[in-house]
Amino acid sequence: MNQYEKYYKNELVKIENKIQNLFNGKEPSSLYDPCSYIMKSGGKRLRPFLVIMGALAIGGKSKDVLNAAVSVEVLHNFTLVHDDIMDNADIRRGQKTLHIKYDVSTAILAGDNLIALAYLNLLKDCKGNCENVLNSFTQGIIEICEGQSYDKDFENRKSVSLDDYLLMIQKKTAALAEMCCSIGGQLAGGSKKEIKQLEAYGRNLGMAFQLQDDLLDITADQAEFGKIIGGDLVEGKKTYLFLKALEKSKGKIKKEFESVIKNKGCKKEDIPKFKKYYEELGVISDTSKEVINFTNKAIKAVNFIEDEKTRNLFIWLANALINRIK
Amino acid sequence: MNQYEKYYKNELVKIENKIQNLFNGKEPSSLYDPCSYIMKSGGKRLRPFLVIMGALAIGGKSKDVLNAAVSVEVLHNFTLVHDDIMDNADIRRGQKTLHIKYDVSTAILAGDNLIALAYLNLLKDCKGNCENVLNSFTQGIIEICEGQSYDKDFENRKSVSLDDYLLMIQKKTAALAEMCCSIGGQLAGGSKKEIKQLEAYGRNLGMAFQLQDDLLDITADQAEFGKIIGGDLVEGKKTYLFLKALEKSKGKIKKEFESVIKNKGCKKEDIPKFKKYYEELGVISDTSKEVINFTNKAIKAVNFIEDEKTRNLFIWLANALINRIK
Repeated sequence: MNQYEKYYKNELVKIENKIQNLFNGKEPSSLYDPCSYIMKSGGKRLRPFLVIMGALAIGGKSKDVLNAAVSVEVLHNFTLVHDDIMDNADIRRGQKTLHIKYDVSTAILAGDNLIALAYLNLLKDCKGNCENVLNSFTQGIIEICEGQSYDKDFENRKSVSLDDYLLMIQKKTAALAEMCCSIGGQLAGGSKKEIKQLEAYGRNLGMAFQLQDDLLDITADQAEFGKIIGGDLVEGKKTYLFLKALEKSKGKIKKEFESVIKNKGCKKEDIPKFKKYYEELGVISDTSKEVINFTNKAIKAVNFIEDEKTRNLFIWLANALINRIK
Repeated sequence: MNQYEKYYKNELVKIENKIQNLFNGKEPSSLYDPCSYIMKSGGKRLRPFLVIMGALAIGGKSKDVLNAAVSVEVLHNFTLVHDDIMDNADIRRGQKTLHIKYDVSTAILAGDNLIALAYLNLLKDCKGNCENVLNSFTQGIIEICEGQSYDKDFENRKSVSLDDYLLMIQKKTAALAEMCCSIGGQLAGGSKKEIKQLEAYGRNLGMAFQLQDDLLDITADQAEFGKIIGGDLVEGKKTYLFLKALEKSKGKIKKEFESVIKNKGCKKEDIPKFKKYYEELGVISDTSKEVINFTNKAIKAVNFIEDEKTRNLFIWLANALINRIK
């Protein structure tokens, strides 16, 4: 474990400790038990770490943004709870999703409450410059909602361009990473220019993260991955790989990809065939290149950070996300 | 129409105008059309007016809190959209509810977006003292969620005390009215003491409003009411009247009230019988007294307002709500 990973794990303990005590003694339990259930179900806590990193980049301290860090994790968990209802998902992080464990009404309400609790925690770390921080935070939520709406639209749309897709993941995934870096930097008193650079880091990192997610669905090692390889194809998801394959393929193979849209997914046994098409069409290497492209943009954006150790922390995280196996 | 009603109608036009233009040109339409649908479906816009009144009480101007006024209406509409899903309600203000007009996923997402849009509008009117205003606003949302959670709990609980019920409506209904007056006053620069008084006005007004709602369900004039008289009994709702009747009744009649709980409602044809029980038990006059009690508390709280015309506006509204027929 290198010094950056050690630092991440160390901060994780503090974040986790705060999360574990978020709802102590709160009533009614019919509301706070479900909130607690989702918040304690784990996750990499990457978003809170981005808030801390944002503060570090400006010379701020982790301890001054810990509540803000927790707030973005609370917000992220709200999106998981409501998205799982919309996606009819039964399992999340190896556990029952909230609306399955409880019911849909409880899950809607717990998610709503998590939004407000996210603001409540963020406000704890706001001293003076709270207007801009809260505007960024709020804009982040709006983008997430817009992104999720596009995502739902795409499920039923026959034609989705690669640009449409990139806009959707920019809103659904990258906007939150951008906001995390932004509010961390703002709370530490960063200049407009510095904040813009931090936002660019977060946004590009978020794009790389989502494209890597799309990639792992087909290239991951089954033993390590924890999910079925090719699950996106089975569900008929219009991922970057899929849309790129649709664009590059011709004739019979293009028809086969089109039939995945028409049938809203492919059979499990057809996954190896489509994986071979992906390889032959060069779609896997295209996507890898895009991941590296976005990662390099992210790294370039934080050139402004003078402290070498802090700058290297940003570079370490970007590379760690590229090299992840699940 | 007296001068106060004229003033209310006049402010209403400004609020309505802002609401009508809230989502102009916003994309995706799959998200903003539903948001627009619910926001344009009417309503008394009482909550925005409370924000304006809160500002007036401190010597502030309506035009400086119009965005904040809109924000509480946006927030209120979020609660309607999500509550209607939980309550399986098909009709609201004579129109299809959002999840019926569109679908449940769309309604969840539109509601989420409305929360963020509420913050966005509130932030437009925050100058400097935004931390306290946002804390009050956020605390309001948390109380609404807690209140809704209690309300859902009570549906399945056999025993609910009058105190339980009062706590529930304080959170579900009165907390929002309290918050509206509070943020209006805070944005106009009110002192802590003034804000506390304004909050007491809003909270007591909210309590009176909800108890009057419970009362109208059985005492309203069918031609004026627009809903079925006794609908709460048919749905088996544990209203103030119902819980009071349960407390005061004995023997055979108590058993009949208990059977409404057991059967999760009564038959339509039994409404006149229960109405007679309510009258005989004095439950209707008990509730009327409580309405007047809360209204008087509200009016007493705004004694601090020096400007007579403004103070009378607060008194006019409190009395107008008692005297409403639907």
